[in-house]
Amino acid sequence: MTDAKTAPKATPEQMANAIRVLAMDGVEKAKSGHPGMPMGMADVATVLFSRFLKFDASRPDWADRDRFILSAGHGSMLIYALLHLTGYKGATKEELSNFRQWGSKTAGHPEYGHMPGVEVTTGPLGQGLATSVGFAMAERHLAAKYGDDLVDHRTWVIAGDGCLMEGVSQEAIALAGRYKLNKLHVLWDDNEITIDGKVSLSDTTDQKARFKAAGWAVKAIDGHDMNAIKGAMKWAMRQDKPTLIACKTKIGRGAATMEGSHKTHGAALGAAEIAATRLGLAWDHDPFEMPQTIADAWKKVGRRGAKDRKKWEARLAASAQAADFTRAMKGDLPEAAFDALNAKITELVETQPAQATRQSSGAALDELFAAIPELVGGSADLTGSNNTFVKGTPILDAPTYEGRYVNWGIREFGMAAAMNGLALHGGVIPYGGTFMVFSDYSRPAIRLGALMGVRAIHVLTHDSIGLGEDGPTHQPVEHLAALRAIPNLLVFRPADTIEAMECWQIALQTKTAPSALALSRQKTPAVRTVASTENLSAKGAYEIKAANGDAKATLFGTGTELALALKAAETLEAEGVATRVVSVPSFELFEQQDAAYQASVIGRGTVRVAVEAAIKQGWERFIGEDGAFVGMTGFGASAPAEVLYEKFGITTEAVVAAVKARL
Amino acid sequence: MTDAKTAPKATPEQMANAIRVLAMDGVEKAKSGHPGMPMGMADVATVLFSRFLKFDASRPDWADRDRFILSAGHGSMLIYALLHLTGYKGATKEELSNFRQWGSKTAGHPEYGHMPGVEVTTGPLGQGLATSVGFAMAERHLAAKYGDDLVDHRTWVIAGDGCLMEGVSQEAIALAGRYKLNKLHVLWDDNEITIDGKVSLSDTTDQKARFKAAGWAVKAIDGHDMNAIKGAMKWAMRQDKPTLIACKTKIGRGAATMEGSHKTHGAALGAAEIAATRLGLAWDHDPFEMPQTIADAWKKVGRRGAKDRKKWEARLAASAQAADFTRAMKGDLPEAAFDALNAKITELVETQPAQATRQSSGAALDELFAAIPELVGGSADLTGSNNTFVKGTPILDAPTYEGRYVNWGIREFGMAAAMNGLALHGGVIPYGGTFMVFSDYSRPAIRLGALMGVRAIHVLTHDSIGLGEDGPTHQPVEHLAALRAIPNLLVFRPADTIEAMECWQIALQTKTAPSALALSRQKTPAVRTVASTENLSAKGAYEIKAANGDAKATLFGTGTELALALKAAETLEAEGVATRVVSVPSFELFEQQDAAYQASVIGRGTVRVAVEAAIKQGWERFIGEDGAFVGMTGFGASAPAEVLYEKFGITTEAVVAAVKARL
Repeated sequence: MTDAKTAPKATPEQMANAIRVLAMDGVEKAKSGHPGMPMGMADVATVLFSRFLKFDASRPDWADRDRFILSAGHGSMLIYALLHLTGYKGATKEELSNFRQWGSKTAGHPEYGHMPGVEVTTGPLGQGLATSVGFAMAERHLAAKYGDDLVDHRTWVIAGDGCLMEGVSQEAIALAGRYKLNKLHVLWDDNEITIDGKVSLSDTTDQKARFKAAGWAVKAIDGHDMNAIKGAMKWAMRQDKPTLIACKTKIGRGAATMEGSHKTHGAALGAAEIAATRLGLAWDHDPFEMPQTIADAWKKVGRRGAKDRKKWEARLAASAQAADFTRAMKGDLPEAAFDALNAKITELVETQPAQATRQSSGAALDELFAAIPELVGGSADLTGSNNTFVKGTPILDAPTYEGRYVNWGIREFGMAAAMNGLALHGGVIPYGGTFMVFSDYSRPAIRLGALMGVRAIHVLTHDSIGLGEDGPTHQPVEHLAALRAIPNLLVFRPADTIEAMECWQIALQTKTAPSALALSRQKTPAVRTVASTENLSAKGAYEIKAANGDAKATLFGTGTELALALKAAETLEAEGVATRVVSVPSFELFEQQDAAYQASVIGRGTVRVAVEAAIKQGWERFIGEDGAFVGMTGFGASAPAEVLYEKFGITTEAVVAAVKARL
Repeated sequence: MTDAKTAPKATPEQMANAIRVLAMDGVEKAKSGHPGMPMGMADVATVLFSRFLKFDASRPDWADRDRFILSAGHGSMLIYALLHLTGYKGATKEELSNFRQWGSKTAGHPEYGHMPGVEVTTGPLGQGLATSVGFAMAERHLAAKYGDDLVDHRTWVIAGDGCLMEGVSQEAIALAGRYKLNKLHVLWDDNEITIDGKVSLSDTTDQKARFKAAGWAVKAIDGHDMNAIKGAMKWAMRQDKPTLIACKTKIGRGAATMEGSHKTHGAALGAAEIAATRLGLAWDHDPFEMPQTIADAWKKVGRRGAKDRKKWEARLAASAQAADFTRAMKGDLPEAAFDALNAKITELVETQPAQATRQSSGAALDELFAAIPELVGGSADLTGSNNTFVKGTPILDAPTYEGRYVNWGIREFGMAAAMNGLALHGGVIPYGGTFMVFSDYSRPAIRLGALMGVRAIHVLTHDSIGLGEDGPTHQPVEHLAALRAIPNLLVFRPADTIEAMECWQIALQTKTAPSALALSRQKTPAVRTVASTENLSAKGAYEIKAANGDAKATLFGTGTELALALKAAETLEAEGVATRVVSVPSFELFEQQDAAYQASVIGRGTVRVAVEAAIKQGWERFIGEDGAFVGMTGFGASAPAEVLYEKFGITTEAVVAAVKARL
């Protein structure tokens, strides 16, 4: 150990080497991980953290901190090393040496919620970058709303070649360019290496020209030249566009013999290489041990922003908006968030119109949008179809950004990823619309949102063959099942306006999970026509019609097909078959109910039939092995909706027949 | 009606107007559809078909025809009108006037297999373009293999702003640029309009610069200037790069008052506008009626390629490769396709090593690759992990293209879409690898492949928490269920090398459906150790171990968890519980078996327990309402695989306990 008192000041190079050594040692200990990227980007990260990034390691929740996003998430040891070195609570030596082990906070890829300072879960390539667009957009929007005094920070992203090859990166950079998100800075680890070898094996894109074409300012530097890095970051902060800094680096920089090789990407370097690398870096310390000078220098970096943070806190305390800002950033809803909605429910329960549930969703938004100012909506170019636009809403756009509706363009994945960013940033509750079939496009971001537990609300209209003529390319049949399969995603399929309003309320109240609302294109009758003070949809499934006498049959339905079930029940009752009907707006919420309630709803011992214009998968949970399912068994077709329902046999008659066959 | 004999020759403008009128009339009749795009691109399409596209309407299956791909599939009336006018069989007046109706061949979006001349199903934006990369790559590869005499054609794509905004377009154009696919020509309908309004609302990308950055040659023209269009197409055919022709057009061109408006995009124009438009275009014919001069001119266009086609047929007949070329284009496998594989199965059944099923898959490919020369493999930059590379295979690359392995780069969606294109072109059977979790990225193309029924084989390795340390971002838990949900997709999860080889054989023999192989990262013991001359996996599920005596319990398992089931059965048998074990390599194939076989496998009346390191959804089919499922209930975690299995309770002990609790 060096004696701290007599030791010279740590150089930036030594500080960067601290990252390199932690990365290679962490991966070596785990015998698994990715040392090449952290070693390659250590210089860039050192300059960013020690000179530019606005943060205070002691207060990772400082609302006006810069956001640092490691889009190349496999290089997780880079962020763990940075958080450890700068003194984030939780980023202990023990955690670093338990990299990739059960129960540690240092997962193989950075996981949001495990360690303070990790702003977003990354690893699925391209998504960190796409999510950062939401962060940067939230910043501009909140700055417009609360003023630069409270909101004035940057979003710094480290992205690799993989991020830039993924298609979602194009959606992201086009959005950032269009919206002139000039406080978004991407540091591209331009190391010319992918897992299979040289980038040129699979890509010859001129990335710099590509970003320029998307409206970015671009600069290329040597990513191991500290002065060049500094100069480029200064330059970036002066631009009126988003900025790309192409950092030419060597993967595994500093590795004795493997520097520059794709072999450093995804595996431990091995004892011999590590020993040689230590020698080359003049690093004679044990794994996870820091010499005092370097430790001190990094700790100082961690405190660098404390003064600014305190000034900001003073400004916040003095601000008339303090309470509202704090509430919004915490994700709490305004007290009266649902007053108008509940009043509307009371008003509508007996008079609600027969309308498409997408219109019902629009009606819910009409009541919610004014009451919850953090709601920011949008659509992937299907505004009129998705009913996502609340009349009179200004568009969120440069240069003022105070609007609350985003034209996302034809970019479902980019939208969903940016929605995650908006939600993670805080102060904004995003919702965004597309056709349900295109949840396949946005699925990777919906999943990541579920894994992180963010409140992003996906408005998925045209939810079945009921969309009609557009045909099977546009008709979801497997999407309800596929969405219900995603853990921690609330999937709602409301049956009428009351249920749609209830589902919206639940989605907004659920701070730790994204929601997907499946909504119809076609008109459907009102089914919830009896007043209830309770949000019945919150139970996931509930008896909407009791049997006349001892139930012989139970019919389950969702969305537009619930009306078919109710009509079938009428027919059956008329023929003397006591039939109850259960509405199932959400499988997930039903699973959260206690066993007794579940049993009471499911009604074993009765003939059970479910109807949903989708595939059966998952419905066995309700109908058991002997129940019947009236729905789809394959892709849809192009024809008017009513014809399709008839041809595919999703009818009241089919439900009735299925019951009778089983009585 | 004009008198054909005295009428002047039809002008190109009149020919284009024929498309316009058919489009607006077809949509009007259906009261649904998209007239704007066909009207806008009618001039471009007219020049393409009448002067450049190599085709013979009487022989839509001519192998060396140019491929025409309408990536902006909503403009389906454009292709239907073209096929009708040029005289494709099946593209009748009746079909056109039954646009978007049940049973018609004129679906809302062009559907592969409905009408000859529709090369690919389009509508989900960006995918037509991405699929075209596969078409163009297949052409280059087959030209290398069979010579320019037999294979020498182009791929022409019409793409809209939506196609270019979708991220997958970036993956596609980067691939085309990298691979110098100079016979790929994209005609961009640069009409500055999207559904929500002007393109500039959501996009300000300089598309021309973007394509150039990806290695394309680019030209911009007035898309209503016939001479300019002609010049640009000539220019395109001379380039040594893929080409973009940016065609500045007016959406709804020719519409009396709505030309240029986004209102022409997705709805019928209405009777008044149509009447006024007829007047403006001097078109005094009934809907779907063609004046003779124009009909004749178009029919002549349809016959334009007949001479070339006949010459080509003569060359084919004279070619020593005729039989092989014809077989490969038909999609038939070589006679001895599976000889080596079957010999290997016989050899390995008693001696197969314990290995990861991804290695088993690699071993299958080792036997198949030489025997089936149309196999073209690849990986989205995970070659070593996916075990997709057969040693010694040359890389498919410019300038010769004769290699059989594609470096797809980090582009799962682009890869899967291009695989569809390779398969649709014919002469090639594509497979491609990625991590199973990233099937979320490629999912839209997997779905479209299933809808079209193409033989594309998705090699999805790292199929569960068994991948270990990479953590929940990389661990599929819902993906088996989500893939099984897609109609007409065969999902396989083989348990050892024998099953892997069997599944590969089925996938290759299935000409009308894509397959997804779920393969493990981690080692798993051999389970199929008794010789069978039958491909048991082809039944989807089969008893792999009979009970000793009357079965009290049935255990179901797949992939790496089948070994747990077998071990649990051993324990149970030792304790006197007669237990059978069922391997379930494919849910879909099991559903195709007769009811008696299904019942015999499922074993109602026994205690039923299934084990799979994934979510339960779908397993109720096998275990009923009272059976147990040992698997996952949420996302995974980052830790070594064996720790995860233990912590998540996916163990032999758990299976045994579940049975005992139910006895």
